[in-house]
Amino acid sequence: MTISKITTALALSLATASIASAQATTPPIVGFTSAGSQQQHALEAKAATLASPSSADALSRELSREPHMAGTPAQARTRDIFASELKKYGITPEIRTYSIYMPHPTSVHLYRVAPNATELSLSEGPIAGDTTSSSYPQILTFNGYGAAGDATGDVVYVNYGLIEDYKTLDSLGISVKGKIAIARYGRSYRGIKAREAEKHGAVALVIYSDPADDGFARGDIYPEGPMRPWTGVQRGSVYNDNGDPTTPDYPSLPGAKRVPLDQTNLPRIPVIPASYKNAAELLRDVRGGGELPRGWQGGLPFRYHVGPGPVRARVVVTTDAATHPYKDIWDVLGTIRGSEFPDQLVIIGGHRDAWGPGTADNISGTVSVLQAARTIGDLMKQGYRPKRTIIFASWDAEEWGLMGSTEFVEQDSARLSKNGAAYINFDEVATGPALGASGSPSLRPFFRDVTKVVASPEGNGSVYDAWRRTDRITADTAQPEIGDPGGGSDFAGFYNHLGIPIADWGFGGPMGVYHSAFDSYHWMSKFGDPGFKYHAAMGVLGAVALMRMADADIIPYDYVEYARAMRGLTATAAKNIAANKWGNVSTSALDSSINVMEKSAADFNAVRDAALARGVSPATRKQANETLMQVERAFVRPEGLPVTKREWFHNVIYAADNDNGYSNIGLPSINEAVKAGDQALSVREIADLSQRFLRAAGLLDSAARSLRTP
Amino acid sequence: MTISKITTALALSLATASIASAQATTPPIVGFTSAGSQQQHALEAKAATLASPSSADALSRELSREPHMAGTPAQARTRDIFASELKKYGITPEIRTYSIYMPHPTSVHLYRVAPNATELSLSEGPIAGDTTSSSYPQILTFNGYGAAGDATGDVVYVNYGLIEDYKTLDSLGISVKGKIAIARYGRSYRGIKAREAEKHGAVALVIYSDPADDGFARGDIYPEGPMRPWTGVQRGSVYNDNGDPTTPDYPSLPGAKRVPLDQTNLPRIPVIPASYKNAAELLRDVRGGGELPRGWQGGLPFRYHVGPGPVRARVVVTTDAATHPYKDIWDVLGTIRGSEFPDQLVIIGGHRDAWGPGTADNISGTVSVLQAARTIGDLMKQGYRPKRTIIFASWDAEEWGLMGSTEFVEQDSARLSKNGAAYINFDEVATGPALGASGSPSLRPFFRDVTKVVASPEGNGSVYDAWRRTDRITADTAQPEIGDPGGGSDFAGFYNHLGIPIADWGFGGPMGVYHSAFDSYHWMSKFGDPGFKYHAAMGVLGAVALMRMADADIIPYDYVEYARAMRGLTATAAKNIAANKWGNVSTSALDSSINVMEKSAADFNAVRDAALARGVSPATRKQANETLMQVERAFVRPEGLPVTKREWFHNVIYAADNDNGYSNIGLPSINEAVKAGDQALSVREIADLSQRFLRAAGLLDSAARSLRTP
Repeated sequence: MTISKITTALALSLATASIASAQATTPPIVGFTSAGSQQQHALEAKAATLASPSSADALSRELSREPHMAGTPAQARTRDIFASELKKYGITPEIRTYSIYMPHPTSVHLYRVAPNATELSLSEGPIAGDTTSSSYPQILTFNGYGAAGDATGDVVYVNYGLIEDYKTLDSLGISVKGKIAIARYGRSYRGIKAREAEKHGAVALVIYSDPADDGFARGDIYPEGPMRPWTGVQRGSVYNDNGDPTTPDYPSLPGAKRVPLDQTNLPRIPVIPASYKNAAELLRDVRGGGELPRGWQGGLPFRYHVGPGPVRARVVVTTDAATHPYKDIWDVLGTIRGSEFPDQLVIIGGHRDAWGPGTADNISGTVSVLQAARTIGDLMKQGYRPKRTIIFASWDAEEWGLMGSTEFVEQDSARLSKNGAAYINFDEVATGPALGASGSPSLRPFFRDVTKVVASPEGNGSVYDAWRRTDRITADTAQPEIGDPGGGSDFAGFYNHLGIPIADWGFGGPMGVYHSAFDSYHWMSKFGDPGFKYHAAMGVLGAVALMRMADADIIPYDYVEYARAMRGLTATAAKNIAANKWGNVSTSALDSSINVMEKSAADFNAVRDAALARGVSPATRKQANETLMQVERAFVRPEGLPVTKREWFHNVIYAADNDNGYSNIGLPSINEAVKAGDQALSVREIADLSQRFLRAAGLLDSAARSLRTP
Repeated sequence: MTISKITTALALSLATASIASAQATTPPIVGFTSAGSQQQHALEAKAATLASPSSADALSRELSREPHMAGTPAQARTRDIFASELKKYGITPEIRTYSIYMPHPTSVHLYRVAPNATELSLSEGPIAGDTTSSSYPQILTFNGYGAAGDATGDVVYVNYGLIEDYKTLDSLGISVKGKIAIARYGRSYRGIKAREAEKHGAVALVIYSDPADDGFARGDIYPEGPMRPWTGVQRGSVYNDNGDPTTPDYPSLPGAKRVPLDQTNLPRIPVIPASYKNAAELLRDVRGGGELPRGWQGGLPFRYHVGPGPVRARVVVTTDAATHPYKDIWDVLGTIRGSEFPDQLVIIGGHRDAWGPGTADNISGTVSVLQAARTIGDLMKQGYRPKRTIIFASWDAEEWGLMGSTEFVEQDSARLSKNGAAYINFDEVATGPALGASGSPSLRPFFRDVTKVVASPEGNGSVYDAWRRTDRITADTAQPEIGDPGGGSDFAGFYNHLGIPIADWGFGGPMGVYHSAFDSYHWMSKFGDPGFKYHAAMGVLGAVALMRMADADIIPYDYVEYARAMRGLTATAAKNIAANKWGNVSTSALDSSINVMEKSAADFNAVRDAALARGVSPATRKQANETLMQVERAFVRPEGLPVTKREWFHNVIYAADNDNGYSNIGLPSINEAVKAGDQALSVREIADLSQRFLRAAGLLDSAARSLRTP
């Protein structure tokens, strides 16, 4: 696409994504001098004029033209498109190649052995009007890292396959040992379902999408609506760790030492996904198990039963593990070197790999990162130069276990730890009008400010205004919720491993084609983001956020909000501790050190604002920023989370819940010890974390001190 | 069945239904002298030994051998069985014959006109193992009092067809005018659905049973489980008033004046019920109406849409209205004349008619009434004689609009008003282990006491103990809930029209064969009450309750509990008033008159207990009882409920909700005025009711005065 084309598209799109005009004359931006604020506002106004739904549309169509799973030639094609786009924007791309242990399936079969033996069709099938569903071979319906094998057994329905579901089965005297477990998707990461099925002795696991969860019970089904059709299948990895299983903690470069497979956490049983059409064939005739436990009925048109049997199933999976287990993956990085703080890094990224065309997951994020890159590239052609270094990243093999981002983080951990200012993650960012956000509390006020200056694609005010309407916020003083960092996307390496503040944003809506062949350009242009206005808006949000973060004289963290969030986490931990009735385990040390941190943060904010009003020398700014970037690093430690043996999870503020995979656990070092009933460890972890809050407070004090000296 | 057979059955059943032994030596029974209590306890212990699951089983099978709709020869057969059973017990039966306007359908047809024109099969069909479903012709699937007609139109899905559902349709700009509405059963009496569909201009209404409400989503379907199968249909009346529509307020005796049909509230459009199998054929291809309103999706395996169309349907109903509109119905009454207060009446009853075999609805109640009669009959053979008169009633045509009980109440209103002590209703009383009860607050402590002395069929204590377990009551001071009188069964005439204290009890469980051909002996013996232990227990509960009520020296009402319940109703009314923001409408007059009533009630209870401990002369007892029976009559008035034009509803404490039919509205004279926004009337009604509470208090004072004089 040429510049002149983009400009034309821009002119047409000004109405849909522009800097909200009422906000253009607001007071100083946090972290900027008064003069710097004026410049930045002008820059942001210009950035908004560069929004281009039509270029997003064209890029989305091009990048999602065919299925492009990690480790396939189609991913080389998307790599090259991403790199060539960066070049067009004047940004030199860099390719990082990693070699990942990643067997691909060569065949997947599912049989009902009894009654009425039949092989079930696993193809999602072509859908009229959705050209990608018929023009290219669909990727086999499989779960990444499920074992190869051939297993036959009576069917047991295990509801969502959660830990509590197996407890319920235990109470009913029903075991999956030697059986084929069938679980529905939802309520946990699928890797947890695989782990629990294997732990309980199942010989194979079938995970299906129940219509009650994302099918017809939720809305019209594709192609009539956005929800999952009868043949739709959710693929996805069932690996529970992050990064190449054979290279923990270090990058999977050529020649890297590999851990033997039997020392990894890879599943030992075949695990495959299925449509609800398939599930009906397996579940309809299951009997036994007595009265169905409350909440276990799904949306298929018969009464569900737990079993086991009399339905018997057979699962057969073959892979190329013996012949070709390692695959190359490619991250693409585009770097704009900062003018004043070139070592300090502001990073935005999203994964590029998919389980099919992946128009939502995650060509939407990929395109939005490129929109931000194009916008900043265009501004650079008009003379703009960011003060900090900006990196635009396209990660590969996220779908298999955050491979691309994790290997990058492991490879560049030294510079990232020292100089990583923030990582912004774009994953599935434009599938509807509802803004959702999560991330480190230190970046929440920053994000809210950014949304206040970007126009909502629906018109009627800013993205922030629309966000409040969606979340039904009416009180003047209330704000939309921003979630805590959970699991399941590329921010994990930055946040959980290195302690870099992260944010994860996107617009969402009803979607039942997740990880299916129907996550296609046709679905996106008809249901997810007709007109690609939300893709364009994400590009503007990304560009504004990157430039504010890169250009701020003082990085705009907010450790007052952070400390307040910590108080909420401590209250929860105290409740968990109280449930153990230990009597003499107190969290008061946490409370007081958080109070100290909040006081230091408030002092710092005041000192910062005064300094910016007064003017600060480059050397002072540099020193203050370097100190500030270390505040959140106070919460990482090399030993990670010992109770759940998650050494890689260095950050002790938030982690993915080890029993859920997607959801979040706050203060994991403490809460995992409490949950394990280990009183002595709990006491030690409270002391450890209290010290870390004090250390963070000390860093804030030190940054404030440096700013007090002009 | 001969007495010797019954005795044998009794010996076998002692373990399953006996007076809970731990309770046999309890303190005096409320309303009895100390000596009387001892006698009564002995009598109750004897009654318990007469419980007979096997005779209940045999009677249930016999009475539900064939479908026996009101107005058919099969109802003459059940009439004769009931009468002959009474005779066997030594009780002389009386038959009351009424002639009711009650057209029967002669044909019912439902067509899908487009797309793919087809006639839908309305037969519920035979089910293997359920002999009644195949041995006798099934009653046509129709809604009683739906109009004859032939209507064709586009289909509109109206959810439950509630008033609020039509408000939602209005907000979507969708009208049912000239269309065929299809509503699901549930959340209201079906007559309300018919009224609203007609009011909004529908040319016909189809009411179907959604599987989410009582089908496979709730449990295994018949014959595998108790829930509704694909072809199961809920018949039932769509008439909204009580009693023969052509004889309001007076009995439908031969020669009675008849109101012209166009002055009745009978439906003007055809209304028919359907299975969910039928509904799927009508709803699957409905489109339009935009996004389905929240909560409107049912359990069929496709996305529901509101329409209208493109599906078109045709409903054709013919009836015998032109040739044979009036049918004879038969109440059967068995009276045991009281020895001391022969005018004072204690009545138990249940309807006998059904929409099919009706083993649950209501042969279970019929059999249980007979079990109570047999028990008391047997005790009389051993010399027992109740002090008050006991009437065992079998009502006909309840299913069409409480015909039999209403005509009886209208015919005998004078003696009932003066001397009706209590009416106990048995309708669908043995379909599972969960006790449910509703009724006048004045009878609640009495009922709890009765359940405490009857053994639970499940073993492990009394019915009361089991009730507490079912309701998960653990606090020592808490008690299971007893509901307020709603609508939909034969207590209405006694309670709403005459102000006689009523109670409505039964054991329930999962049931999806309501008003279907599958409400059969086979269903009952497999799912509802295998072994008929709950039928037998209901017989014991009935006998004990009747004898306590009949033999008490002072009728055991509790107007302290009553007054306290009134306080709750007043609080609700005050909330409703506050919502109108009238400012100066106060319920304080109610509060203070309820306080007066509670004080009088507490005084009366103390005086009563003292008098009973001391001994009371027959004349004093008689006078006190006659006064006591008038307390609740203070709340009836001839003008009834003017706002909803329900003149027949004389009682102003509780009424069926005019917008729902089943559920209850407290203080209807006030709350209907408030809902109508009529401030002046609300003020008048508050004053009226306050006076009635004071009058009730005065009657209690007067009863106490008579007891103070020995």
